[in-house]
Amino acid sequence: MLHYGADYNPEHWPDEVRREDLKLMAEAGVTMVTAGIYSWAGVEPRPGEYEFGWFDDVMAGLAGAGVKVCLATMTASPPPWLSHAHPEILPVRADGVRLSPGARQQFCPSSPVYRAHAARLVEQLATRYAGHPALAVWHVGNEFGCHVRACYCDVSAADFRGWLRERYGTIEALNTAWTTTFWAQRYDDWAEILPPRVAPTFPNPAQQLDFHRFSSDAALGCFLTEQAVLRRITPDTPITTNFVGLVQKALDWHTWTPHEDVVSLDSYPDPCDPRAHVEAAFAYDLVRSAKDRPWMLLEQAPSAVNWRPRNSPKPPGALRLGSWQAVAQGADAVLFFQWRQTSGGAEKFHSAMVPHGGRDTRTFRETAALGRELARVPELAGTRVRADVALLHDWPSWWGLELDSHPAALEQLETHLAHYAPLFDANITCDVVHPSRDLTRYKLVVVPNLYLLEPASADNLRVYVASGGHLVVSYFSGIVDGCDRAHLGGHPAPLRDILGLRVDEFWPLDGPIPLEFADGTTDSGAIWSEWIELEGAEAVASFAGGDLAGRPAITRHAFGDGVAWYVGTRPGLAPLLGRITAEAGVTPVLAAPPGVQAVVRHGEESAYLFLLNHGTEPVTVDLPQPAPDLLGDPSRPLREVRLAPRGVAVLKG
Amino acid sequence: MLHYGADYNPEHWPDEVRREDLKLMAEAGVTMVTAGIYSWAGVEPRPGEYEFGWFDDVMAGLAGAGVKVCLATMTASPPPWLSHAHPEILPVRADGVRLSPGARQQFCPSSPVYRAHAARLVEQLATRYAGHPALAVWHVGNEFGCHVRACYCDVSAADFRGWLRERYGTIEALNTAWTTTFWAQRYDDWAEILPPRVAPTFPNPAQQLDFHRFSSDAALGCFLTEQAVLRRITPDTPITTNFVGLVQKALDWHTWTPHEDVVSLDSYPDPCDPRAHVEAAFAYDLVRSAKDRPWMLLEQAPSAVNWRPRNSPKPPGALRLGSWQAVAQGADAVLFFQWRQTSGGAEKFHSAMVPHGGRDTRTFRETAALGRELARVPELAGTRVRADVALLHDWPSWWGLELDSHPAALEQLETHLAHYAPLFDANITCDVVHPSRDLTRYKLVVVPNLYLLEPASADNLRVYVASGGHLVVSYFSGIVDGCDRAHLGGHPAPLRDILGLRVDEFWPLDGPIPLEFADGTTDSGAIWSEWIELEGAEAVASFAGGDLAGRPAITRHAFGDGVAWYVGTRPGLAPLLGRITAEAGVTPVLAAPPGVQAVVRHGEESAYLFLLNHGTEPVTVDLPQPAPDLLGDPSRPLREVRLAPRGVAVLKG
Amino acid sequence: MLHYGADYNPEHWPDEVRREDLKLMAEAGVTMVTAGIYSWAGVEPRPGEYEFGWFDDVMAGLAGAGVKVCLATMTASPPPWLSHAHPEILPVRADGVRLSPGARQQFCPSSPVYRAHAARLVEQLATRYAGHPALAVWHVGNEFGCHVRACYCDVSAADFRGWLRERYGTIEALNTAWTTTFWAQRYDDWAEILPPRVAPTFPNPAQQLDFHRFSSDAALGCFLTEQAVLRRITPDTPITTNFVGLVQKALDWHTWTPHEDVVSLDSYPDPCDPRAHVEAAFAYDLVRSAKDRPWMLLEQAPSAVNWRPRNSPKPPGALRLGSWQAVAQGADAVLFFQWRQTSGGAEKFHSAMVPHGGRDTRTFRETAALGRELARVPELAGTRVRADVALLHDWPSWWGLELDSHPAALEQLETHLAHYAPLFDANITCDVVHPSRDLTRYKLVVVPNLYLLEPASADNLRVYVASGGHLVVSYFSGIVDGCDRAHLGGHPAPLRDILGLRVDEFWPLDGPIPLEFADGTTDSGAIWSEWIELEGAEAVASFAGGDLAGRPAITRHAFGDGVAWYVGTRPGLAPLLGRITAEAGVTPVLAAPPGVQAVVRHGEESAYLFLLNHGTEPVTVDLPQPAPDLLGDPSRPLREVRLAPRGVAVLKG
Repeated sequence: MLHYGADYNPEHWPDEVRREDLKLMAEAGVTMVTAGIYSWAGVEPRPGEYEFGWFDDVMAGLAGAGVKVCLATMTASPPPWLSHAHPEILPVRADGVRLSPGARQQFCPSSPVYRAHAARLVEQLATRYAGHPALAVWHVGNEFGCHVRACYCDVSAADFRGWLRERYGTIEALNTAWTTTFWAQRYDDWAEILPPRVAPTFPNPAQQLDFHRFSSDAALGCFLTEQAVLRRITPDTPITTNFVGLVQKALDWHTWTPHEDVVSLDSYPDPCDPRAHVEAAFAYDLVRSAKDRPWMLLEQAPSAVNWRPRNSPKPPGALRLGSWQAVAQGADAVLFFQWRQTSGGAEKFHSAMVPHGGRDTRTFRETAALGRELARVPELAGTRVRADVALLHDWPSWWGLELDSHPAALEQLETHLAHYAPLFDANITCDVVHPSRDLTRYKLVVVPNLYLLEPASADNLRVYVASGGHLVVSYFSGIVDGCDRAHLGGHPAPLRDILGLRVDEFWPLDGPIPLEFADGTTDSGAIWSEWIELEGAEAVASFAGGDLAGRPAITRHAFGDGVAWYVGTRPGLAPLLGRITAEAGVTPVLAAPPGVQAVVRHGEESAYLFLLNHGTEPVTVDLPQPAPDLLGDPSRPLREVRLAPRGVAVLKG
Repeated sequence: MLHYGADYNPEHWPDEVRREDLKLMAEAGVTMVTAGIYSWAGVEPRPGEYEFGWFDDVMAGLAGAGVKVCLATMTASPPPWLSHAHPEILPVRADGVRLSPGARQQFCPSSPVYRAHAARLVEQLATRYAGHPALAVWHVGNEFGCHVRACYCDVSAADFRGWLRERYGTIEALNTAWTTTFWAQRYDDWAEILPPRVAPTFPNPAQQLDFHRFSSDAALGCFLTEQAVLRRITPDTPITTNFVGLVQKALDWHTWTPHEDVVSLDSYPDPCDPRAHVEAAFAYDLVRSAKDRPWMLLEQAPSAVNWRPRNSPKPPGALRLGSWQAVAQGADAVLFFQWRQTSGGAEKFHSAMVPHGGRDTRTFRETAALGRELARVPELAGTRVRADVALLHDWPSWWGLELDSHPAALEQLETHLAHYAPLFDANITCDVVHPSRDLTRYKLVVVPNLYLLEPASADNLRVYVASGGHLVVSYFSGIVDGCDRAHLGGHPAPLRDILGLRVDEFWPLDGPIPLEFADGTTDSGAIWSEWIELEGAEAVASFAGGDLAGRPAITRHAFGDGVAWYVGTRPGLAPLLGRITAEAGVTPVLAAPPGVQAVVRHGEESAYLFLLNHGTEPVTVDLPQPAPDLLGDPSRPLREVRLAPRGVAVLKG
Repeated sequence: MLHYGADYNPEHWPDEVRREDLKLMAEAGVTMVTAGIYSWAGVEPRPGEYEFGWFDDVMAGLAGAGVKVCLATMTASPPPWLSHAHPEILPVRADGVRLSPGARQQFCPSSPVYRAHAARLVEQLATRYAGHPALAVWHVGNEFGCHVRACYCDVSAADFRGWLRERYGTIEALNTAWTTTFWAQRYDDWAEILPPRVAPTFPNPAQQLDFHRFSSDAALGCFLTEQAVLRRITPDTPITTNFVGLVQKALDWHTWTPHEDVVSLDSYPDPCDPRAHVEAAFAYDLVRSAKDRPWMLLEQAPSAVNWRPRNSPKPPGALRLGSWQAVAQGADAVLFFQWRQTSGGAEKFHSAMVPHGGRDTRTFRETAALGRELARVPELAGTRVRADVALLHDWPSWWGLELDSHPAALEQLETHLAHYAPLFDANITCDVVHPSRDLTRYKLVVVPNLYLLEPASADNLRVYVASGGHLVVSYFSGIVDGCDRAHLGGHPAPLRDILGLRVDEFWPLDGPIPLEFADGTTDSGAIWSEWIELEGAEAVASFAGGDLAGRPAITRHAFGDGVAWYVGTRPGLAPLLGRITAEAGVTPVLAAPPGVQAVVRHGEESAYLFLLNHGTEPVTVDLPQPAPDLLGDPSRPLREVRLAPRGVAVLKG
């Protein structure tokens, strides 16, 4: 079955409301709630004094109502008594400001005091609810790294030094890795090393990059501390935690997901942005590709959020469309933040399944209808999405790309989405994978901007192309190694042979630059241009103005049995990727009208074609062969599907 | 008489200049000066060592010249020796930065050390100058809360805890009031509570709101500390302090003004803004309504200020016009900052009655002419302004409205002025009053945006409408209670019966939305829209586009003997309020050409019609009955008044 | 000879690369390198343990290759061990944040600990390399004040107090100088004085101004500490340090340059800005005028930098053009930052003579060609530039001008360049000199905006005009004295007699204001306008709109044997300065097509006319008399010179 539900914070409400909750959950088709995320202060009101009784009642009520619980470990917000007794657990910013309690995430991830108190609580929880009929999944912490992306305190500094010692072994190895000959930064002793706190000017970039790595690992350390307790006491209960999506970049999912049993995501596309579903789609492909297995949409908003400058509700139909989009792209669970809208607190204007206005509201009607609909298609659970195209993504490269003092300030997500959107619009299904992943199953690999490239990953690409793969690499890729040191010998040194060229100079743009293709057609480039010297590649397009006039802009190079393209500017990517995918033999899921997303989930016996109309006009989609719409009349095969604005169909074939 | 004068800082100048000051004051018609605001370091150069001799001379000189003194308590800027000996009196920002001396207001309002030193000085002052012939009014402190709107230090934290204890009694009451179940913020002990210092994300909103209240009260505590000394020693001398206007919102005037004998305001309309007089007018109506009695304009600029990005002088005639505007709206005193322009210091480019260039300057000529003119109409003093319309304003609601994480960032002053300006332009006189005020004397009550609404105030409105009043409520009013907790059951819950509707969803806008009125006319809405469900009200206008097309936008509801309007967007308010005021039987003071402000002050025997031409073209105003212009020839009644650009007339009838 | 070379950081590279360096230096015509700037951690890896061997090898290699060394004292970035052992040497911001190591300049200039360690190292260096055949110049520190413009720590505070005591003698003198009567800031004891740390509002401006002076002197103290060691041990080796140009204003060059043997500048014009060479020209004239002797261009970029938001390479020909411009304006040395592009660290994307791509790159080809070209004209060394026009510049006035709370935020560089550019464009050579300099040798003195004017400098101007000089003064000059106290009696009081007028009011603009000249022509003014009262001057132009309509805008006054102009707004300055220079008898170097810069360097026997085409089109320049181009065929005199885009010629006559 596909799970459906929401975050559930029972401590907000008195008993009579909680009793009504169970009735409304049944009405809304809720099958799972994420409970207890902020219950620490409720179950442990004083150090070591536990009051689980009320929570036992909540669990019992949910079990009785047949609602499964994704049970939080309750450690996301330590109670005021903890930071009052141990102010040193409060996180510190790069400028030395120690953050105050009164919000959430007010802990230093490296704090042994915080971790010990968290582990003690988790031990209590796991022992108490092991085998509970409602318990389905453990939800460790919550949105790690969402607000406190790194802590710069002295405890973190010591932890960072230990982490570096493990990574580098000797101080000389660290000095080499960090290029500390530059600006006389050579360390003579581990004790001299600090986090990259505010400095007179740009701090050492390798130090910054390693601190990103360390901070992800420090948060992972919190996760693993709790995970170890859970594994010991409830070895058969699956474990997850919820990533906050791509609004921030604190955690390297690639190092986290191996420790999770199921991967979960929070997703908050902006209802004001007509293209927000594309960024969401990218995140869904990324989270799905992490394990190549179904994932959980652990949070989304039923309607408006409260944290943007302007927070619009989702218009009628949008929450249904967005939820089905997640399922289409591989989710087996669709949950909201949150069940019942809070009266007080910082998120009281965040929408919920049960709004301030109660049951007789558009939001409750729409969420309840969705719950009934999802319950009709249990067969979708466990089915898989398959892709012929991989787009490469790597967190350290993202971190490195967005460090200071570069030729220009490039943004990883902008570049990713610029390359992803034309494929999405063409209904070409993508995986988004790590550069070290086996790529041989893909017909095409897209590298939008992989600034940091380890030699092993370059070799992975070399083998892929040599053995017949098609590769597209855009500008400012393959520039540095894992320590943010430029690969010497002409950029992008580790890819020069594959691409058949050398980049001598980076010429970032502040306006368009004309392009002329070899066939005489024209276009313009944006953001970036380069001084490229060909070394075997052919110029597919050249710059046609400015100081680079006549020099190559886009190139193609036969390498081994494959083909490697290089894109030294930002041209119109839809036609270019159209040409490249055609050459690579990549075909769309379906020819559909603009605005219609088409994805297939494959079961063992059937395939399920999802059609999602992201537009605000009705459209008709011709089907290659008759198939019934599981959300309509499952007994009547259709030759064409009429989709209302924001309409959805699931065709079984 | 109407008092006229300026801040006077004699310590800036040697004796010979002070002697010239007395002559120039006589020439300029000065009758009152505010003296000694920054004299602390001068009269107490070392702890407990007083040197009052030079100030005695100043007081004697002023008395001899017949100039009254609004005597400052000198505590606005403690001397360097105090913060040097007690660095803990220096205020601390939310990010923990302790502010340095070298400017002004460098004290923590909660500091017992500061308060004790201040009280000791005030004791000296009051004892010394009690009964002095020059002493007319005490001016406590100066511009409380202007720069240091709140202090986040540990002393303030302890004081905040004491304040909370007094407010809530038990920690559980506080937990309930603050909704600390949200994000696990439950306090187990008072000692755990802190000011809302910088936190990982949005701090608890009720904590923020209470800290606003506390910070106003902490400053009020300073005022009351000094007031108690003054009351004891000089029980018959009236006491005031000067509010800095609406450029900031630190102080809740509603809790302050009961402690003042006369209310004072500083007013700095921007000469570059052709509508600045409307915002000034709003502030004057607000300050007048506080006690419904004449007030003092304690500071305004003769010409340019020095603290905006661009500081323009007042063009010829503007200082006269602006000063008469204050009198028209109820002021009985018109003072400037300051008498003589300083040579050094942070305000040396702020204008003064006597500029750097001395007596032979446009500014001195204009201020001296104004002094002579004010002296001609002593009969205006004590007369009152009357209004048929009340606009509701509440500081905690303002604070609450502008907290973070709302549907959109609304600004209280923008909303107030949007509703006030059409009434001002129509010469409909308004009071601006607290929601708890008796409203039955008004024909119309306007609620531009009263986000926070206590149940008692809702009852006040209910009684008002039920007994025949006309009420207009704009969007996002009546949303939360005094603890920033949403009133449950459909917005605006406490007003639903009066308004005959329910608001399900907030749809803030970033562009215009078309409106269609029931009579077929059209308009457009801005800033905000809503999903409104009618429950008895009629739709006067509906949205005519977007996802809300066809749904109600502006409604009217007969309730009891009265009528309640609701405005769910920002339409053109001039025609709408025109219709509503007509229906409520509210009439303008006078039909005057655009740009002419008309206000009446009522004496026991006469009424005084002020006509103020805020435009830059001459205009003619027809009078309903012949009346003489007291500023022209008081013996010649006029049928019409010719106003020069920036011209003023005071017609006695 | 003209020296040519780059910063050389040998510690970045292993021996084999250093060996290649020497070969490539020879190929590129390198004659001098600045070595060792960041070698402290390399030569003193632990406190007091020196490892000079590797640096000896570098020096020996350079000597063997005939490359001279501008030897850095290596103190620009203390090693981590120093701040680890003495965290109090780390600088502190105005908000109390202590800056962290990990970048560069991480020292408090007032720190006795830092200075002692620096002096100890310099003693070692000077002793070791005294008399070394490679040693040519000492380069003390590096880019003093570039990132840490001031330190606000307690050590600095104590040093500031000592500096003030020396400046003022008594606390009462300081109180008077700082106008501490304002806002009750009177100090009773030196110990109470602090740096202008973050305060509740504008800190005392005289305190700010003196802290600027102090901070420049604190950095100078570091320079002098090292200089004293060097003078003692190597009395015959000249000493320099490199100013970072006008991107910041921390150091008062006027107080620094007397202590240098040769003045050096770093210059980084933005390749994206087509007028960047004008700002560079201004800086070159300023640095040349400091000693009226040849100077060293100690750093420039061969191509792109890395610290702007967008960093473009220099297009072909630009580095040659820019280098020759520096020579034309008096430089005898042209060096780059840096020799070989670093692989890691914060500046790895900063261009270098040897880029990441190595020798076979456009940058190396162009830098090597330039080296060969410079070697052809050794006779230029030592020749001088002469100017008939002086533009006045003063650092304290710059600091004062850009303090807070002024009529509007004027920017010194904007005003300087607005006046300088028309003269530059007309090929009228300027000196840029201090207001105290003897001005009698100039035909015209331009005062773009000398906010702070000491009486002695006003007298200097008075004598200059009275004895026949021509003077142009623009608005907001002569306003305050050296303590930022307004000169009383009508602005600009110290110049009123010379200018024949009085300025009553400042009217800063946010848009254009029409102007009408006495001859009926029209123009418009920007940025500023004023209420001017004539006192002997004639109105050359008047405002023709707004509240100032009909009042004087630009005036001319015969004073003694000279003429003084006043410009109370920003008109089109090219025609106005054209009229004024003509009247003053100032003539251009040459009538040249637009975009061509013409400057003459005078030797004892010959004069050298530099023609620099800053445009991107070829142009032809007619010569007054035939002369050979030393960069072309020196044996063939030309009647006209054809300059390619970005072309250069040096004509010997």
